[in-house]
Amino acid sequence: MKSFFKVISPEKLLSYKHDFLCVGQEKCTIDKCLERILAEDMVASENIPAFRRATMDGYAVNATATYGASDANPALLFIKETIGMGEIPQEKIGFQEASKIATGGMLPEGADSVVMIEYTDAIDSHTIEVFKSVAPLQHVIDIGEDIKINSLQCKKGQVIRAQDLGCLAALGFQELCVYQKPRVAIISTGDEIVPISQSPSMGEIRDINRYTLSAQILQNGGIPVFIANVPDNFNDLCAACEKALAIADMVLISGGSSVGMRDYTVDTIQNFDQAEILAHGVSIQPGKPTILARLSNIPIWGLPGHVTSAMIVFHILVRPFLRHLAGELNPPFYSQPSISARLTRNIASAQGREEYVRVRLEQSSDGTLATPVQGKSGLIRTMVHADGLVVIPENDEGLDAGSMVNVFLI
Amino acid sequence: MKSFFKVISPEKLLSYKHDFLCVGQEKCTIDKCLERILAEDMVASENIPAFRRATMDGYAVNATATYGASDANPALLFIKETIGMGEIPQEKIGFQEASKIATGGMLPEGADSVVMIEYTDAIDSHTIEVFKSVAPLQHVIDIGEDIKINSLQCKKGQVIRAQDLGCLAALGFQELCVYQKPRVAIISTGDEIVPISQSPSMGEIRDINRYTLSAQILQNGGIPVFIANVPDNFNDLCAACEKALAIADMVLISGGSSVGMRDYTVDTIQNFDQAEILAHGVSIQPGKPTILARLSNIPIWGLPGHVTSAMIVFHILVRPFLRHLAGELNPPFYSQPSISARLTRNIASAQGREEYVRVRLEQSSDGTLATPVQGKSGLIRTMVHADGLVVIPENDEGLDAGSMVNVFLI
Repeated sequence: MKSFFKVISPEKLLSYKHDFLCVGQEKCTIDKCLERILAEDMVASENIPAFRRATMDGYAVNATATYGASDANPALLFIKETIGMGEIPQEKIGFQEASKIATGGMLPEGADSVVMIEYTDAIDSHTIEVFKSVAPLQHVIDIGEDIKINSLQCKKGQVIRAQDLGCLAALGFQELCVYQKPRVAIISTGDEIVPISQSPSMGEIRDINRYTLSAQILQNGGIPVFIANVPDNFNDLCAACEKALAIADMVLISGGSSVGMRDYTVDTIQNFDQAEILAHGVSIQPGKPTILARLSNIPIWGLPGHVTSAMIVFHILVRPFLRHLAGELNPPFYSQPSISARLTRNIASAQGREEYVRVRLEQSSDGTLATPVQGKSGLIRTMVHADGLVVIPENDEGLDAGSMVNVFLI
Repeated sequence: MKSFFKVISPEKLLSYKHDFLCVGQEKCTIDKCLERILAEDMVASENIPAFRRATMDGYAVNATATYGASDANPALLFIKETIGMGEIPQEKIGFQEASKIATGGMLPEGADSVVMIEYTDAIDSHTIEVFKSVAPLQHVIDIGEDIKINSLQCKKGQVIRAQDLGCLAALGFQELCVYQKPRVAIISTGDEIVPISQSPSMGEIRDINRYTLSAQILQNGGIPVFIANVPDNFNDLCAACEKALAIADMVLISGGSSVGMRDYTVDTIQNFDQAEILAHGVSIQPGKPTILARLSNIPIWGLPGHVTSAMIVFHILVRPFLRHLAGELNPPFYSQPSISARLTRNIASAQGREEYVRVRLEQSSDGTLATPVQGKSGLIRTMVHADGLVVIPENDEGLDAGSMVNVFLI
């Protein structure tokens, strides 16, 4: 028996992510940039709008000319022109003058506000009466009121949202510089594991981790690259690793990460000259038999073979690395969706490790309820029946029924 | 002036979604199915695992043979064989017999549990001592313990998650029947709107809604299809609509949905013989000038031209329609991520309409704080600076600083 030799806390493990550099950049047309990570600060190169814009149909006026106007005492204004949409007004507005304008139109020189058409009456084709005063800039978007020239709009390292695309489109950016999507290699190990294209014989089971891990990689901005199903054998695993290291920014090896008789992941990693094992064993449950190694800038993970453990280790540990490699900086504190719920049962937990409990959520008249899902960590069912995870901190002995918990949605 | 003729509540408008059928189905290989919507119930066609599986390295035994075993009084068992991974055991286990097995191995007939290797000692190559008793099924996953044959695993209409893919892979499904992605046509109207590929002259602005709406469509499982930038002119809008209706499952027309002099959306829709206007005007703010019409099974939306209004109307009204068309049934109650926060300022609101207030979130020692973002609904900046929306119900006059609110993340 080999033994665990480097059990560390999840915090310590996560701190290693800063030892890795993020991937390179690429140009991408703006319509392909949703949820990509921006690789440069975006500064406004112009004022938006570049002109005073009407936000109502009506008349562009100098506000002071309307002061005191009322039904009983309307202001009389002389019409200069009708301003065509998207066109430059031809006429200046003097004190008692107005030009007809529609929502979105450009205000003429001398005008600082728009009187809504509802508060005007046409006397003849050259004259209107105004029944209500407006304030300067009323019913107008001023120059630069939306976006000020030279102001920072979007930040390097942020995830690009729908509204960010709108802002960048407004500024005329047709291409953005984003980070490449990290390529994450997956190697599934186990003599008993067969690809799903193959009918398993008695004693064999289909490869599940390939699909759950691929999906988790996709959800976090990576490109999953499946390398192979590898039997529990040092040479085959070395060959698969070599292939993975040649093409990937990160490598996941599922199965074989523990210290049993068929666990070759540590040996395989150590077979690469430059590789350094940063952790073997993390104080979380499930997921203790997790390996993190580095080979130059590539994190290599040994993940537990049990599907639930592998998914939880991905969620808790691999995910922050992947998003770091992908170039994400300072994600918003709410970027991991969670929900507050009341626990319906006691949960016991051993001290000395952070425990992740799968829970099912339901709504009741008492608010949201979280019920632990029973079952071993080898059972995919327990993840299918779960809506989220509750964390029991390292030094707690458990949680009491009725207590409020924060459930991380999965 | 035309006038609003059918202002309805958002609830009433949303109820129309049930008048529309969802899109057709397609087969998709499982690696392409993440976040797609399942078009059929998935029932387990077999037991998983199909055999009793060891979850520890050790010896497969009949539990009763270990009862009472201790350091002082070990049980003596005779070794039958070493079970190769992925192989069918060759030997039955009798009462005082055991076979060596590794994690994931298949238990032989007669064995119901696994003794961990740590609690055994090899006397010679044929005999072991066992120092600890095991219970039946201990360190074993029983036949069907993960997935029971004939049990429902995933439901028609659900979004396929990572763990669902794992479950379906375990069952050997290589292709899934999912709903097609609805094609959503976008028409941007406005004489002053130019494509971002074009340099706007003074008085013109770039098309923003095309990009924000496309992104929102993508985020909700649709395929955005941009039709055209159309000037405010009945014939051009009719032509663009015709093109959109020929290829799309839903049509969005941004701008021209109000009752001003340049608003042609209603006229255009009415120009199609079979079209029926279901709503013109919704009691929400921003977003009142919203049109919903149907032409056979195609919802046609007239959205406000103001970018923020259009985004909020999409989020509140269009999104549920899109997800319904996409085949989604009974989404989990938490599928719209939200966060609880304390309001930092009073917000006033007019009665008689549901108001959506953009807020910025921050963490403080007092918990999460939500601060309203100031600015007109024509300003994209107000969405860029916002993290979420707070809803003020129709009959409330506002919200007080210090009150707890639910913020829908955007």
